Amino acid sequence: MNITSIPGGVCAARGFKANGIRCGIKASSKKRDLALIVSEKRCAAAAVYTANLVKSAPIKVTKAHLADGHAQAVICNSGNANTCNANGVEIAEGMSRLVEQYTGIPASDVIVGSTGVIGQQMSLEPMERGMEELAAGLGDHSDFAEDAIMTTDTVPKEAAVEFEVGGVKCRLGGIAKGSGMIHPNMATMLVWVTSDAAITPEMLQRAVSEDVKTSFNMVSVDGDTSTNDTFAVMANGMAGNPVIDREGPDFDAFCAALHAVTVKLCRGIAKDGEGATKLLTCLLTGAADEATAKTVAKAVICSSLTKAAMFGADANWGRVLCAIGYSGATVDVEKVDVSFRSAAGRVDVCRGGAGIPFSEEEAKKILLEDEIDILVDLNAGAASAEAWGCDLTYDYVKINGDYRT
Amino acid sequence: MNITSIPGGVCAARGFKANGIRCGIKASSKKRDLALIVSEKRCAAAAVYTANLVKSAPIKVTKAHLADGHAQAVICNSGNANTCNANGVEIAEGMSRLVEQYTGIPASDVIVGSTGVIGQQMSLEPMERGMEELAAGLGDHSDFAEDAIMTTDTVPKEAAVEFEVGGVKCRLGGIAKGSGMIHPNMATMLVWVTSDAAITPEMLQRAVSEDVKTSFNMVSVDGDTSTNDTFAVMANGMAGNPVIDREGPDFDAFCAALHAVTVKLCRGIAKDGEGATKLLTCLLTGAADEATAKTVAKAVICSSLTKAAMFGADANWGRVLCAIGYSGATVDVEKVDVSFRSAAGRVDVCRGGAGIPFSEEEAKKILLEDEIDILVDLNAGAASAEAWGCDLTYDYVKINGDYRT
Repeated sequence: MNITSIPGGVCAARGFKANGIRCGIKASSKKRDLALIVSEKRCAAAAVYTANLVKSAPIKVTKAHLADGHAQAVICNSGNANTCNANGVEIAEGMSRLVEQYTGIPASDVIVGSTGVIGQQMSLEPMERGMEELAAGLGDHSDFAEDAIMTTDTVPKEAAVEFEVGGVKCRLGGIAKGSGMIHPNMATMLVWVTSDAAITPEMLQRAVSEDVKTSFNMVSVDGDTSTNDTFAVMANGMAGNPVIDREGPDFDAFCAALHAVTVKLCRGIAKDGEGATKLLTCLLTGAADEATAKTVAKAVICSSLTKAAMFGADANWGRVLCAIGYSGATVDVEKVDVSFRSAAGRVDVCRGGAGIPFSEEEAKKILLEDEIDILVDLNAGAASAEAWGCDLTYDYVKINGDYRT
Repeated sequence: MNITSIPGGVCAARGFKANGIRCGIKASSKKRDLALIVSEKRCAAAAVYTANLVKSAPIKVTKAHLADGHAQAVICNSGNANTCNANGVEIAEGMSRLVEQYTGIPASDVIVGSTGVIGQQMSLEPMERGMEELAAGLGDHSDFAEDAIMTTDTVPKEAAVEFEVGGVKCRLGGIAKGSGMIHPNMATMLVWVTSDAAITPEMLQRAVSEDVKTSFNMVSVDGDTSTNDTFAVMANGMAGNPVIDREGPDFDAFCAALHAVTVKLCRGIAKDGEGATKLLTCLLTGAADEATAKTVAKAVICSSLTKAAMFGADANWGRVLCAIGYSGATVDVEKVDVSFRSAAGRVDVCRGGAGIPFSEEEAKKILLEDEIDILVDLNAGAASAEAWGCDLTYDYVKINGDYRT
């Protein structure tokens, strides 16, 4: 399949505009805090949400709005998670109505997202004040929208691709925020993807539900599954391709394009994990089945001790073995091989579950890079998996020791 | 039941002696690294071990030695975990034979423990050199033994009690090591308990297996389940009580004494978690059943974000709610109450799943103490649970960023 990276994030696909402004939700901050993404045409829309029993008010409202499989806009604030609030649903509905008032898109076609502190009362007032400016400035501003949904994120996470469906060029692009409280289960923090492909709501939901299993569900920063995770895709059909309404090559092309974007966003989220200095990728091969591969890969990138060792560029592979052992998967630990790899080279450290001699100096050089692959071969089958995480650093503690002030 | 705290650790019970020396397993360290505990008489003995599929060689050897329900000595080193080594079992058997050679206790009655780095070759040589000194110095030296099994531990963890069985005064005491890689599943790091009570091996195993469910299995420092976790109890019967060979008041008295000691060791392990400045106790009440209570309590004390907030004395209770929500237990989150409590007072922060007004200043004062209770009431039943953890600090990262050098 021919998939080409292009610039533009959520504005790469035809008919989508975005904007982000500072309306003052977090009084003490000078950063943008309110984002809007709109489509010229009504879109097929699908989403997956956090598996946390505590769910944000925006998720409750978005679920209701997406019940008919369609949407046309996303409104999203940072600075307050709108979760565990007495007036949460009222605020989220109010945000939808503001979109209707200033863009004409029905409130029931609006996806709502919020990110920030849990359990603080929220007011609609700053958004009421900022909405005119936000709507008036809509344009090719994926970057402003991305900026407005970031919290402790330090770099923007966006991606877009061009691909073909039935000989017609389609585009698909997304933005993501997420840096802490990242251990998604069925979805991740906030990910907004747009496409101009024509696809039915049913096939879009299937693509989204399938995609998360090998994208956002394989990312972890800190093991904490957020209350607000939402991954939503809107496809407006403006590319003019034959509508994707069944399985087959066209659906596969769409799924591949979606995965190209989501994997890039996943790596971006992991690398920008709170306080992180390194992206860790566990490449798990030789598993008996896919479930084992995923469980083991995720256990490795979730291990606090492995994460801290990677921060220190310490080839302490025993911690990788330890994580494999407690992962819960059935593994013959006496068959396991482990290597570390980066732009600086590759070092084999464990064969058949036991240590082998290696140069500590060489290993250090490899682990001082900022993108590390942890290669694990279970030597028990043909299934594989990939999981993304980051190192555990002083700054993670600093950021989270006093997040609210 | 009348249970009185007494000094003496593993030497509190009649007939037990201990010692600890530096034999040089970790060449660069000046600390003690080899411990020995022996009983005058052969003991009923029982143990539980890590659920990690990767198991230390000492565990393999200890399991074989305890197959007949008896033991008479513990030998334990720090500085090398003797795990994922080609020659691991040979070394662990060699350690048992050294005990036989210098004390006359059969090698098959020796419990072996090791703690330190995983996956490094180990030599018997330093232990061969030190063994004579170790055996010659046996005495009322629980503290030396404790010192010799510590790694990143900063304070000794020991406890002992006196209790009555059939009108006869019995004693039971233990020492524990454990500071990182602490998230026990069926057992914890290294815990050695001795008693002079008379009890059959069967009843002792039952007491141990039951005890861990509400003691060491409810402790977590970093979510990493070690490969070496072992909790073993030896009871030599020298108190002269009627042998405990069935359920009833005598068995209950023994279990209560055991629990008094293990809970104290649990709190000690959690408070001395790597880098920790605070002991966190989650007191979970109002659960529909015990499994729910345990799952939720453990999720709270395992949450990296909650742990970091406690380090910062930040009453960010939304993270507690978040952890409850992703714990996997079935909970009606709109009924949950949360409060924080310490020696400085108590502050209620959440009622019915939503925030309530509280004084941030007062909360800060409470959270600046070094022992914090997180009180969670699910308001859904009568079951309860208690779990122990610690805060997440810069020093955890520092200790684990370069543990091997």
